Amino acid sequence: MEQMIDHIKSWLEEAGEKIKSSQQTLTISQKSNRTDLVTNVDRNIQNFLIEKIHSYDPEAKILAEEEGCNKLSDLDGRVFIIDPIDGTLNFVIEGENFCIMLAVYESGVGKLGFIYDVMRNELFWGGKGIGVYKNDKPMPRPANKSLSEGLLGVNSYLFGHNKYGIREIAESSMGTRMYGCAGLELAAILKGNHIAYISNLSPWDYAAGNVLLEEFGMVTSGLFGTPLTFDRREYYLAGTPCAYAEIADLLKKEG
Amino acid sequence: MEQMIDHIKSWLEEAGEKIKSSQQTLTISQKSNRTDLVTNVDRNIQNFLIEKIHSYDPEAKILAEEEGCNKLSDLDGRVFIIDPIDGTLNFVIEGENFCIMLAVYESGVGKLGFIYDVMRNELFWGGKGIGVYKNDKPMPRPANKSLSEGLLGVNSYLFGHNKYGIREIAESSMGTRMYGCAGLELAAILKGNHIAYISNLSPWDYAAGNVLLEEFGMVTSGLFGTPLTFDRREYYLAGTPCAYAEIADLLKKEG
Repeated sequence: MEQMIDHIKSWLEEAGEKIKSSQQTLTISQKSNRTDLVTNVDRNIQNFLIEKIHSYDPEAKILAEEEGCNKLSDLDGRVFIIDPIDGTLNFVIEGENFCIMLAVYESGVGKLGFIYDVMRNELFWGGKGIGVYKNDKPMPRPANKSLSEGLLGVNSYLFGHNKYGIREIAESSMGTRMYGCAGLELAAILKGNHIAYISNLSPWDYAAGNVLLEEFGMVTSGLFGTPLTFDRREYYLAGTPCAYAEIADLLKKEG
Repeated sequence: MEQMIDHIKSWLEEAGEKIKSSQQTLTISQKSNRTDLVTNVDRNIQNFLIEKIHSYDPEAKILAEEEGCNKLSDLDGRVFIIDPIDGTLNFVIEGENFCIMLAVYESGVGKLGFIYDVMRNELFWGGKGIGVYKNDKPMPRPANKSLSEGLLGVNSYLFGHNKYGIREIAESSMGTRMYGCAGLELAAILKGNHIAYISNLSPWDYAAGNVLLEEFGMVTSGLFGTPLTFDRREYYLAGTPCAYAEIADLLKKEG
């Protein structure tokens, strides 16, 4: 495991360097709508990581955001789940506030997770039974804060339209935050900065974060407590055990 | 002017060091409600800055967030406008994503502005006729992007309740962001990361940012185009000339 961790860290570092040197030569295309973008850099980084993974483990399966890799029939065996650039809109417009995410699952069980905030040079990583780290330092387990004690990360649509009562839930927290990047929202929970995150996510948006959150005893699921499917975009809830339970109680089935 | 800039930078640096070393000894009190907090650090930093200002210029007037300094009968003469910790909730809960802000006005005209993101060690500063800088480097003037081309920072209440149609306006941007810190929202416009910011602010929340935004040709005002009063909390709009004009057109008087 330790050897695999070192490999993955070196791939991510190299991928980060590629991203930093590529911001002058962006080619941007729309996917499902005008705010759902993909760039040549997303594709190049995904291909780079897949190449590294396959030269390390030719048997590994890949689930990744960009075309051709975004479906798997099952999670049997070793699966690498990749988001080459999470927060593509931030990447394109801001040149910051995005991250690379990579997770390793074994037959559906999360083993390793990596969230790499490239521009701030902050790597959140760890795994089942090995703890959670920011760069070289072990992170302390966040306090089990309640909804009224903490900041809540939300998806703008769910909050703005009060879907499932989410605006009202957010208003009983200390404050609502929107970063436009799932990886940074989940890192905020790992740091103890936020108590929960409610959004609409694909597997590569939560795979890495979930491994780290669960190692810290945080709770993750679909919005109404069902296990995450890893096969589609779906409503997502993660939080401290206390805030998670309160939010689950307050959610209204009819949004 | 150059000498005053050097003084202010050294005060801010010292204030930042005080903040970094004080996070272990926070005393937190509520002001108007449970999410409106003040700490001993806000008060100490404000007192520290006032002392420095008065030993530099005994005649200068002060307008500042914490008690005793938050009202002036007029803006005649030289006025220093201070927010010792902007984003107090982020400061208390996250220990990051806050800033110190300081502005110098002469008879109501903004001359110098400073936004200091303490934990990231990023000082945005500049003034009328001297440009805008991030630490030692001149910042490029942001492009005059339209609403549909950029990210929009908003206040969570105005967005969540669609006051004045603000949720709908935000939904015609590329994406909505909420940082919980006016200084960081205004810095995002200075960097060209966001096209506008809509919020409910007090003078110390916008005084420094406005000097820098205006130096870059950005537009700032009350929500419906009236000049900012500098004497109360009020609805606030700042943006690129293009996005500002579009937002002003789209705002609905009855929210």
